[in-house]
Amino acid sequence: MAVSTASRLRVLVDMDGVLADFEGGVLRHFLARYPGEPHVELAERRGFSGRGQYRRLRGAGSQPGALWLTEVFICTSPLMKYEHCILEKYSWVEKYLGPKFVERLILTGDKTVVSADLLVDDKDTIKGAEPKPSWEHILFTCCHNKHLELQTPRRRLQSWADDWRGIVESKRRSNVEKECYASLTANGN
Amino acid sequence: MAVSTASRLRVLVDMDGVLADFEGGVLRHFLARYPGEPHVELAERRGFSGRGQYRRLRGAGSQPGALWLTEVFICTSPLMKYEHCILEKYSWVEKYLGPKFVERLILTGDKTVVSADLLVDDKDTIKGAEPKPSWEHILFTCCHNKHLELQTPRRRLQSWADDWRGIVESKRRSNVEKECYASLTANGN
Ligand SMILES: [Mg+2]
Ligand SMILES: [Mg+2]
Repeated sequence: MAVSTASRLRVLVDMDGVLADFEGGVLRHFLARYPGEPHVELAERRGFSGRGQYRRLRGAGSQPGALWLTEVFICTSPLMKYEHCILEKYSWVEKYLGPKFVERLILTGDKTVVSADLLVDDKDTIKGAEPKPSWEHILFTCCHNKHLELQTPRRRLQSWADDWRGIVESKRRSNVEKECYASLTANGN
Repeated sequence: MAVSTASRLRVLVDMDGVLADFEGGVLRHFLARYPGEPHVELAERRGFSGRGQYRRLRGAGSQPGALWLTEVFICTSPLMKYEHCILEKYSWVEKYLGPKFVERLILTGDKTVVSADLLVDDKDTIKGAEPKPSWEHILFTCCHNKHLELQTPRRRLQSWADDWRGIVESKRRSNVEKECYASLTANGN
C-alpha cells in the first residue's frame, strides 16, 4: 500500500540542550509504558531510528504504527571552535544511539536550509539563509528560554516527558489536511 | 529594493571530487578574466561566499551583480569511518576558504533533506529520505562517472572551467518564470 507523503513526518532534533535527555527520556518512557514490548537493549543496540528501534515498539496511542512513519534526524550546529566538539558529537551519537544513527546526523551552521516538518530546538530564534524554513520550530524548554512568552502559533515542548507525540500527530494531521485541500483545489473542486 | 526570492539561488557544492578544484578553478578564472577587479588575496581571505568574496567581483557577463545573489554551501557526506575525515574537512575549508565558510559547511549522510536550487556532485545517484529533493543535481564529471549517459533533462558540469555560470543563470531564469506563472495563476489570470 502506498503511503501518503503527508503522513510521513520528518523531525529534526537539536543536540545540545535537547538530545541529551532524548535517550533517557523517550526510550525509558516507551519501555516503562510497554514493558512487555520487544526492544533492543542499549548495549546491543544498532540503529535507533523511526524505522528501526521505534518500529519494534507499539505505535503511539490510538495510531498504531504511526511512529515508524516518523523520520528522526539529529541536526546540530558545531561551535566555531570546532576542533573537539565535532568528533565528540559523532562519538556521542554512535555510542548512545548506534552507528546507524550517525547517518542521520546533520552538522550545519544554518538549520534553515534543512527541510523537515518539525525542528525541536532550545534556541529561541533560528535564522539563516532561508527566510521561510519548511519546518515548524518547536521550542524545547530549558533554563535560558523558559521565561520567554511565545507568540501564537508557536509551540513548546517542556521536556521529553511532555506530549511530544501530540505535537507529532497534530503536525501529521495538518499535513494530511493540506494535501487533501491541495488535491481538491488542483481538481477544481 | 526587494529582491525576488526566485532570483536568489542556493547552490550546494560537494567536497570530495568537486570542491578540490573549486578554489583553484573558479577564483583563478575570475581573477584572470577581471585582472583589475578588487579581490581578497588567498592569504588574507576571510569569508569566501556569494555575498562576501564574490560580491566584490564583477557580476557574471551580462548580468551584473547576479553572482552575489548566489548562496554557496558546501555539502559533504563523511565516511562511516569518520574519525579523521570530519576534522580534515573542517580544517580544509577553514584553511582554503576562510573561517566564514565553515559556517556554510553542511555535513550530512543524506543530502536529499538539504534544500537548495542546485547540487553539484560527482556521485551519479543521490538517494535519501526525501523522495523529491528540492535541488537539481548537476553531475560533476570525474573519472568514475564520465562514461555515464545522462537521461534528459539531467545536466553535467565537465569541470569548473566549464560553463557553471550558464547553469546558474538558466536555473535562476527558470525559477523566475515559475514564480511569475504561480503569481499569475494565483491571481486567476
Ligand atoms: Mg541547542
Ligand atoms: Mg563527491
